[in-house]
Amino acid sequence: MEKLYVIKIGGNIIDDEAKLSNFLRAFAGVETRKILVHGGGKLATRLAGQLGIEQQLVDGRRITDADTLRIVTMVYAGYVNKTIVATLQAEGCNAFGLTGADGNAILAHKRVHPTIDYGYVGDVDQVNHVLIGDLLKSVSTLVFAPITHNGQGQLLNTNADTIAQEIARGLSAQYEVHLVYSFEKKGVLLDADDDSTVIARIDPVYYAQLKAEKRIFEGMIPKMDNAFAAISGGVKEVIIGNAEELGELVKGTSGTSIRG
Amino acid sequence: MEKLYVIKIGGNIIDDEAKLSNFLRAFAGVETRKILVHGGGKLATRLAGQLGIEQQLVDGRRITDADTLRIVTMVYAGYVNKTIVATLQAEGCNAFGLTGADGNAILAHKRVHPTIDYGYVGDVDQVNHVLIGDLLKSVSTLVFAPITHNGQGQLLNTNADTIAQEIARGLSAQYEVHLVYSFEKKGVLLDADDDSTVIARIDPVYYAQLKAEKRIFEGMIPKMDNAFAAISGGVKEVIIGNAEELGELVKGTSGTSIRG
Repeated sequence: MEKLYVIKIGGNIIDDEAKLSNFLRAFAGVETRKILVHGGGKLATRLAGQLGIEQQLVDGRRITDADTLRIVTMVYAGYVNKTIVATLQAEGCNAFGLTGADGNAILAHKRVHPTIDYGYVGDVDQVNHVLIGDLLKSVSTLVFAPITHNGQGQLLNTNADTIAQEIARGLSAQYEVHLVYSFEKKGVLLDADDDSTVIARIDPVYYAQLKAEKRIFEGMIPKMDNAFAAISGGVKEVIIGNAEELGELVKGTSGTSIRG
Repeated sequence: MEKLYVIKIGGNIIDDEAKLSNFLRAFAGVETRKILVHGGGKLATRLAGQLGIEQQLVDGRRITDADTLRIVTMVYAGYVNKTIVATLQAEGCNAFGLTGADGNAILAHKRVHPTIDYGYVGDVDQVNHVLIGDLLKSVSTLVFAPITHNGQGQLLNTNADTIAQEIARGLSAQYEVHLVYSFEKKGVLLDADDDSTVIARIDPVYYAQLKAEKRIFEGMIPKMDNAFAAISGGVKEVIIGNAEELGELVKGTSGTSIRG
């Protein structure tokens, strides 16, 4: 089975021109077919501020009202997505940018919650693996902005980690999928404050043991649960590590590799 | 040969929600494969104003400085393009939005001019007809935002009329291409102020005669010259007419049809 890397890039890299440039060079160097999923970093918040649009947060989550949706669509699907695509093209990587609305790539619904109205936030229903598979035959690289749609004309702001996972699962029947979550930490750490305590390999048995012994810190548990959910969904491997070491993460010489 | 419609939508429609909605419904109803090329209407200018970015015009043409490029990329490739795509999806039309950077669809260079620096404005070098042809096998409809790239990492603001013509010519070896320029007038008029004087058919002989007799008004001549250039480049037909009558333009019951 052909390998496919689905790589989520963390927000902090998007905000740093030099780091982004290095990241994209390393990404272009990944020789398999690949999909990049990005957010918008702080650009959307900054633009909202400049336009006098107040950001509403509930439980630490941004509420996406109509004005905010317009901004994230402009920043994520427009500026960030096309800047990344043009940069990758210059690196000789034939990238193609899209959202979940394009070709009905990712269908979602407006989040339903008993007490909070998150606004135009989407939860994913379906990934169009046929379309994405077809696209990957024409171009080597897809770049997803975290915007989906509901099929009834409504764009929806959607969590980029979730999009990466859903795409990875959706493509796992066609490809041997390696899902990379790149962020500012070196990987899954035994001690959250000590980058030298990266755990190189985790399987379900070891994960259960780490949790039972409370040796894995709280903040990491949702990420790990998501990783094992991806693996249950057919993903071959989930890699968690530092976005500044993407080449090493893909080679397996850095970060944490999670397998079934 | 399979028919392909390449349809340029005028800026005034983009600015009017009700007209845009009607236009997109009619566009979704065009039963062949099709490509829509849009601009951004007044939204980019309005956003620039809100952000305090001054628009520079030289000879009536907008100069695209770095700030303006960022804005048109956000508005054209982000907000307008994805809103159109989501709306078409709701009409049952499997649309896919892109720019010239995506998949290296349209390669351009920064405009060279002896006295004026237009900034980040692109003149088209090459349309990737192989990629566009492949995409049209996966989805029925492409929606192009008027942004290209130079292959070296630079996005470029590019005239939507030109993009429509270049795409139409580039696809004419694979498809029987009908190129539609939709705008606020009913078609090519004998009297610029009288919508009832639409010329239904123009061929090169009749065009020469109209020009010789000065029966065609000045402002129309560049559009007509472009139309005949498209036809020389392999396009089967150029249709010029009112965006509010798209269905009729495609049926041939409204507007001006220009053929070789």
